[in-house]
Amino acid sequence: MSEAPKRRRQRNSSRKPTIAWLEQPFRLLKSPIKPLDWLPEEKIEAIHNASMDILENVGMAFMDKQALDLWEQAGADVNHKTELVKIDRELLLELVAKTPSSFTWHARNPKYNLTIGDGHINFVPNSGMPFASDLDNGRRDATSKDYENFVKLAHTIPYFHFAGGLLVESQDIPVSLRHLHRTRSMVNLTDKAIKNVSHGYIIPEDVVKMLELVFGSPLPMAVTGGVVNVTSPLRLDDRMIGGMIAYARHNQATIVTPFIMAGATSPITMAAAIAQQNAEALGGIALCQLARAGSPAMYGGFAQNIDMRTGSPSFGAPEGAWGTLVAAQLARRYNVPFRASGSLTNSQVPDAQASLEANWSMWPCILAQTNIVYHAVGWLEGGLVASFEKFILDTETIGMMYHFLESFEIDTDSLAVQSIADVGIGGHHLDTKMTQDNYKSAFYDPVISSRQNFEQWEENGSKDALQRANSIYKAILEQYEQPHLDDSIKEALDDFVARRTEELKGVNLYS
Amino acid sequence: MSEAPKRRRQRNSSRKPTIAWLEQPFRLLKSPIKPLDWLPEEKIEAIHNASMDILENVGMAFMDKQALDLWEQAGADVNHKTELVKIDRELLLELVAKTPSSFTWHARNPKYNLTIGDGHINFVPNSGMPFASDLDNGRRDATSKDYENFVKLAHTIPYFHFAGGLLVESQDIPVSLRHLHRTRSMVNLTDKAIKNVSHGYIIPEDVVKMLELVFGSPLPMAVTGGVVNVTSPLRLDDRMIGGMIAYARHNQATIVTPFIMAGATSPITMAAAIAQQNAEALGGIALCQLARAGSPAMYGGFAQNIDMRTGSPSFGAPEGAWGTLVAAQLARRYNVPFRASGSLTNSQVPDAQASLEANWSMWPCILAQTNIVYHAVGWLEGGLVASFEKFILDTETIGMMYHFLESFEIDTDSLAVQSIADVGIGGHHLDTKMTQDNYKSAFYDPVISSRQNFEQWEENGSKDALQRANSIYKAILEQYEQPHLDDSIKEALDDFVARRTEELKGVNLYS
Repeated sequence: MSEAPKRRRQRNSSRKPTIAWLEQPFRLLKSPIKPLDWLPEEKIEAIHNASMDILENVGMAFMDKQALDLWEQAGADVNHKTELVKIDRELLLELVAKTPSSFTWHARNPKYNLTIGDGHINFVPNSGMPFASDLDNGRRDATSKDYENFVKLAHTIPYFHFAGGLLVESQDIPVSLRHLHRTRSMVNLTDKAIKNVSHGYIIPEDVVKMLELVFGSPLPMAVTGGVVNVTSPLRLDDRMIGGMIAYARHNQATIVTPFIMAGATSPITMAAAIAQQNAEALGGIALCQLARAGSPAMYGGFAQNIDMRTGSPSFGAPEGAWGTLVAAQLARRYNVPFRASGSLTNSQVPDAQASLEANWSMWPCILAQTNIVYHAVGWLEGGLVASFEKFILDTETIGMMYHFLESFEIDTDSLAVQSIADVGIGGHHLDTKMTQDNYKSAFYDPVISSRQNFEQWEENGSKDALQRANSIYKAILEQYEQPHLDDSIKEALDDFVARRTEELKGVNLYS
Repeated sequence: MSEAPKRRRQRNSSRKPTIAWLEQPFRLLKSPIKPLDWLPEEKIEAIHNASMDILENVGMAFMDKQALDLWEQAGADVNHKTELVKIDRELLLELVAKTPSSFTWHARNPKYNLTIGDGHINFVPNSGMPFASDLDNGRRDATSKDYENFVKLAHTIPYFHFAGGLLVESQDIPVSLRHLHRTRSMVNLTDKAIKNVSHGYIIPEDVVKMLELVFGSPLPMAVTGGVVNVTSPLRLDDRMIGGMIAYARHNQATIVTPFIMAGATSPITMAAAIAQQNAEALGGIALCQLARAGSPAMYGGFAQNIDMRTGSPSFGAPEGAWGTLVAAQLARRYNVPFRASGSLTNSQVPDAQASLEANWSMWPCILAQTNIVYHAVGWLEGGLVASFEKFILDTETIGMMYHFLESFEIDTDSLAVQSIADVGIGGHHLDTKMTQDNYKSAFYDPVISSRQNFEQWEENGSKDALQRANSIYKAILEQYEQPHLDDSIKEALDDFVARRTEELKGVNLYS
């Protein structure tokens, strides 16, 4: 059999990529250790007190008549002309305390229902990028085709808890109709948990009506929800407040996320950025509770610093790591579920910088036991670009994190002293029964990372991680299977989209 | 002045790279938080007991007459024929307890003296690679020129605590003479702390004699030291033991580092790998104390898993992260300084995989408060290749870690509530006095990471992180300044090297 070695080599190099991720079951994720306290309690209290001072003495603007009325009824100091609200800490903390410390985010398929809070870590893909990129087509305006492909990837890879959301902007669809198309696409393409935009009153009401066709009416708490960004410093505009009030009234989730850049929209220290963020996040969460007590709301941490050379926000920086860790500590102090972000980078391409910064985003998220890790994959260029390859590269980190958090066992079997004794001095364990019984599942099996020696790697085309990620995202899309949805629901969604497409002609969504 | 915009753009794109790292002072590094306990105490005790069982009942081979005699005199159960030593836990722990929990590693320039232990984190560059690589010359046999360049980089960048060590193998120099050239190069090129190889009896004795020309005789504890790898399972060979005994007798440091691959040189669980590593590391540390009680010794953690597809060790994997965190916990239990590794990767090129895996090595090192972070930069290809660009890419992580650990302040000034009040609702902080006073030093200033917008980045040549790292390593080498060394010492070193070059002709260094 002189041909055997040659044949083996050929099979090896033409082998289809094995995608170990897809062999995993979908599951909820928790950490085996306590969340990391970066600051001692007295420093957390100092931040808390600073933010209470801000809300009591500086106040926060709520640029919406309904919000101002709600605050006035609750007894806050409201100036209708300046739209400024000053909030005593007692009132604020009483409202924040109405927020559920943990809630279920319902998926179309109940096996994908999520626990938000209680130490659970849930991963969400990229969100809201105007551009998409991959190696074949480069950087380009994102389209509904890109949108659908990102939903399919997040649906197919079991590590993702959410498969839908804003993902990318479908720039081939008019702005005023995107929420309709997005919602229909998500419901059609995945039965995992989904999110949506919560801007203005019109979009959330349309989304709720479409989801009632799927989940029934009234909607269970929560089947959708979205991020509202506080316009720092200290201002919630009518567009954000509309989404918050609309979703809260339908018992859907609002993730209140100030977007603070220290040195621009807050003072130039991360201490001040985090204190201001705390004031803004709690002010927003309290408003959700005014709109409906007990409605699901989350504390979003996104404090970064401005880069003093370019004026850009700095992503995946040490400052952002403090931001995540300390905001999570504050959220735990108030017993409110916490959101941060996982694949942030300023890099223009999925290179070493992109991976370094993404890991500087993800490690703090995991150590902080972030309940929703937004942007867990796919970021490039400060969030302007969703990269298909970066999506896959970041998913390797997520797969590693699952293994890291779940799979370390210390007991008599795993310590295996008898096996050490049996093999003895200077032997090896390659062919022991224990090795043979466990070799398939013992260790994390990487999808992107190459562990070939140099010669094998050269023989396989000297591909770097980026090129391998390009093959893998396409191979995963090939394995996508659309979940069942009743034709009657599909038709009802189509009818809704058709009707609203007519009605929304010329309408300003945020008026 | 119609030319102004053009001229500014030209200056911008031809500007020499700013290397913020080099503006930093050299300093010792500690973490503001407690080391991370990955396992609860009872699991640490389970590992401890398993490893005590191994040393008592299976034993460990010490393949050296002097070592066996030392163990026999101490009262261990020694079989001179099989070279097997069985060690009671009482004897073992009594010996390990003689190890200094913290010691000073002396540099030629006292301002670079290091504290090893007591929560200090010290960074060491790559060590021992047969190949070097950079973008210009590719992957090649390492030479003494490469060796010198790595010393110069680590000397010039203030983040590195050690500038010397094995770095790369100078393959242009005969094996039996490399330690002479290496030692002379280090002493000539840097006055920071240095390490060396500790294999056999001859090399350490030569190194000690050369360093006595610099530091005087007898040497202070410690001015040099090295890693010995236990040949797992459970075996220290004569080459390793020679180095340990020779260095211990001169009060120099030994870093006992079993190289265990779970599934090959230990059972296929990380629990067993770590228990076996604990037995091997403690057995080696105890031998150092038998050779000289109170001599500086360290607990090295390097437990990885074998990759079941390729048979390679897996570097930068979740398994190695557990290995670092739990070995550090064990070292703290025994009050012995701890060493782990920081830039490990299997990647063939400095790409996203390399950066991902390097961060999976470094984050556990930092969380564990690793006293010596070996291989903190530069690794490629499972340690076969030292890459100049990877050196620089990994240094960005180290710079970020310094900032992360050192620079977060929470006090009345940094909380800046008055500044928040002054700017008020919806303003910005770009031109406040606080921003103007602090913008240069407020945030980590990256050297490699690009935060330019896409258009600026394109205009600057669309360079990825790897290409930028290539420019930066050359720019740093240009800024290298050789520290003063008395001519008399230089001559004495040259004389020693010349004499030993003659004497070592045809000598087996490890006989």
